[in-house]
Amino acid sequence: MKKRYIKLNNLTVFCRQIFQSYGFSTEQSELITQVLLTADCFGIESHGVQRLMRYHDEITRGMVLVNAQAEIVYETPLSAVIDANQAMGQLIADKAMRLAIRKAENSGIGLVAVRNSNHYGIAGYYTRMASEHDLIGISMTNTEAIMVPTFGCQAMLGTNPIALAMPADPVPFLFDAATTVVTRGKIEVLHKQGKDLPVGWAIDGQGDVTPDAGLVLDNIIQKGKGGILPLGGAGETNGGHKGYGLALICELLTGIMAGGPTANHLSSVAQQAQTSHCFWAVDYGLFGSKAERRSSFSRYLQELRDSARALDCPRIYTHGEKELENSRKVEAEGVPINEKTYEELCLIARERAVDLCSIQLQ
Amino acid sequence: MKKRYIKLNNLTVFCRQIFQSYGFSTEQSELITQVLLTADCFGIESHGVQRLMRYHDEITRGMVLVNAQAEIVYETPLSAVIDANQAMGQLIADKAMRLAIRKAENSGIGLVAVRNSNHYGIAGYYTRMASEHDLIGISMTNTEAIMVPTFGCQAMLGTNPIALAMPADPVPFLFDAATTVVTRGKIEVLHKQGKDLPVGWAIDGQGDVTPDAGLVLDNIIQKGKGGILPLGGAGETNGGHKGYGLALICELLTGIMAGGPTANHLSSVAQQAQTSHCFWAVDYGLFGSKAERRSSFSRYLQELRDSARALDCPRIYTHGEKELENSRKVEAEGVPINEKTYEELCLIARERAVDLCSIQLQ
Repeated sequence: MKKRYIKLNNLTVFCRQIFQSYGFSTEQSELITQVLLTADCFGIESHGVQRLMRYHDEITRGMVLVNAQAEIVYETPLSAVIDANQAMGQLIADKAMRLAIRKAENSGIGLVAVRNSNHYGIAGYYTRMASEHDLIGISMTNTEAIMVPTFGCQAMLGTNPIALAMPADPVPFLFDAATTVVTRGKIEVLHKQGKDLPVGWAIDGQGDVTPDAGLVLDNIIQKGKGGILPLGGAGETNGGHKGYGLALICELLTGIMAGGPTANHLSSVAQQAQTSHCFWAVDYGLFGSKAERRSSFSRYLQELRDSARALDCPRIYTHGEKELENSRKVEAEGVPINEKTYEELCLIARERAVDLCSIQLQ
Repeated sequence: MKKRYIKLNNLTVFCRQIFQSYGFSTEQSELITQVLLTADCFGIESHGVQRLMRYHDEITRGMVLVNAQAEIVYETPLSAVIDANQAMGQLIADKAMRLAIRKAENSGIGLVAVRNSNHYGIAGYYTRMASEHDLIGISMTNTEAIMVPTFGCQAMLGTNPIALAMPADPVPFLFDAATTVVTRGKIEVLHKQGKDLPVGWAIDGQGDVTPDAGLVLDNIIQKGKGGILPLGGAGETNGGHKGYGLALICELLTGIMAGGPTANHLSSVAQQAQTSHCFWAVDYGLFGSKAERRSSFSRYLQELRDSARALDCPRIYTHGEKELENSRKVEAEGVPINEKTYEELCLIARERAVDLCSIQLQ
């Protein structure tokens, strides 16, 4: 698919103006933009600026409340539960992780759960905040149901990413992975390209593995049967019950602990924002010398990168390296935007009366 | 393969006598036996009484020290690091989880890391202890290297299970899964049966997926190249990098945080016990009403079990159900023991001068 490249700075200015046009403050607009564009920098196109249309839709029909007043509904020195009251996901997620970090710095650990929120972008943005404070950061979110349980054919769990960040040198460890085999975004990409799905990604309404991307997407949208398989695939042979269990842990630590609904009761077309997240920060000084732990972990990551490669595989990565390299590339070359996304940006700009010139250049 | 069935009580008496013969106290012998036989009850044969030969070997050659004096080397109100000083894994793991539970009951959370330990049996035994105290329990352990990183062909990470337990009604949620596609035990079973490995379980020394169970086991034993693949399989198409990342998280929270070596520096043939574990207990009252959270989680588990089944799949499980059902079966029918394991038990009994009659009956 043809791509155009827009300078990161120009796209930043543009997105900030769009968010300001809804009534978000300059600071809030900057933060939402940073989360969005960090996804593009990391090479996670599905969670980047191509989501602007979804946010535009959710903000204009009132699922996201621009002036939402989130409130802490339960708190201890180690923990808090926040009711986001339909706030923009990125804004409340940033606040919640800051609170977890403050608690970890004061008490050793901070566990914060959030309910009644919206889509918050990439989980890894928030865990990286903790690692920049020299803490272990953990974040998860539930989403509307998209994953079938093992032996099931009805989507009952979300994409349910698990993210964990730990400081390391020269590159932090930034793990951020959906507990499905793949995200819905990757299925959409293959669908647009007219390609079949690889075996083991998704099932049809009977529960049979299917290569038909269009069918899977239709079923998800229409809340029909079928869905994306858990990490490990269909049945138990290759560990599908493990991915299912990890997704269930995500529901436990987000929806259940926050007092919000689980994935199977969420709907993106409802007016009510009911997504739940969790944000944990752990001071790893709880286990002794931080310098020693950080250096032994950095050494291990290097040993992994230096270990013997499989034939025809040029390189072994540790998690976070690809993201850093892609960020450098994006800063040099611009953000790759496909034509459909570009058209959406133009449409939103017209609706919001925002000047397109910053993204028309280049 | 032919199996004989031994009454659970008889096998309990037998194992206890064996462990007492090495010099463990009655109480210690009972505990080790309980961990071992819980694996058999749960249907995890690989971690049950068939491991007795391995323990016998490790105890008699001094890798496990019967009179080891473990010591707490670092402690805060929320955390501790324990040097096991080559203790029997089950004994120090029980102590460590009890300490984590005590800290969680006093302070809301308890994070305990252990180094210089031995194989500790099933991770799920210890997380269940926490759930029996109405806490969330988490446990992980590293093991000698058996898993290759994505794009690698050298085993650099352990089987590295992640276990999490949460109280629920009528059945607790007991998740306990290796971050490899499968455990070495399952490959051994297929090898004994002369069967090929399913596609996507393991790779040879070049990094190519192989169905040859014997080759994979030989490579592991001889520390040659090749190994078992991470959950998600080879490459990134079906999420192999996710299983690899989860295993890395396990190394971080065990070996790195405990101040012990990572999997690639562990060897079961060395005289020095250097396995690391972690034990976390979290009072989920940190998030508000425990009764509400427990009941909403129980309801969700029931919704999963009741959701639409794939064609020809009679049932959807939640994690912990199969284990409970298998326990009832074992209590009624006895522990299934294959002939090879039975011969090993007889050999150990002769060496330790323990009467075989309890396991010869039935």
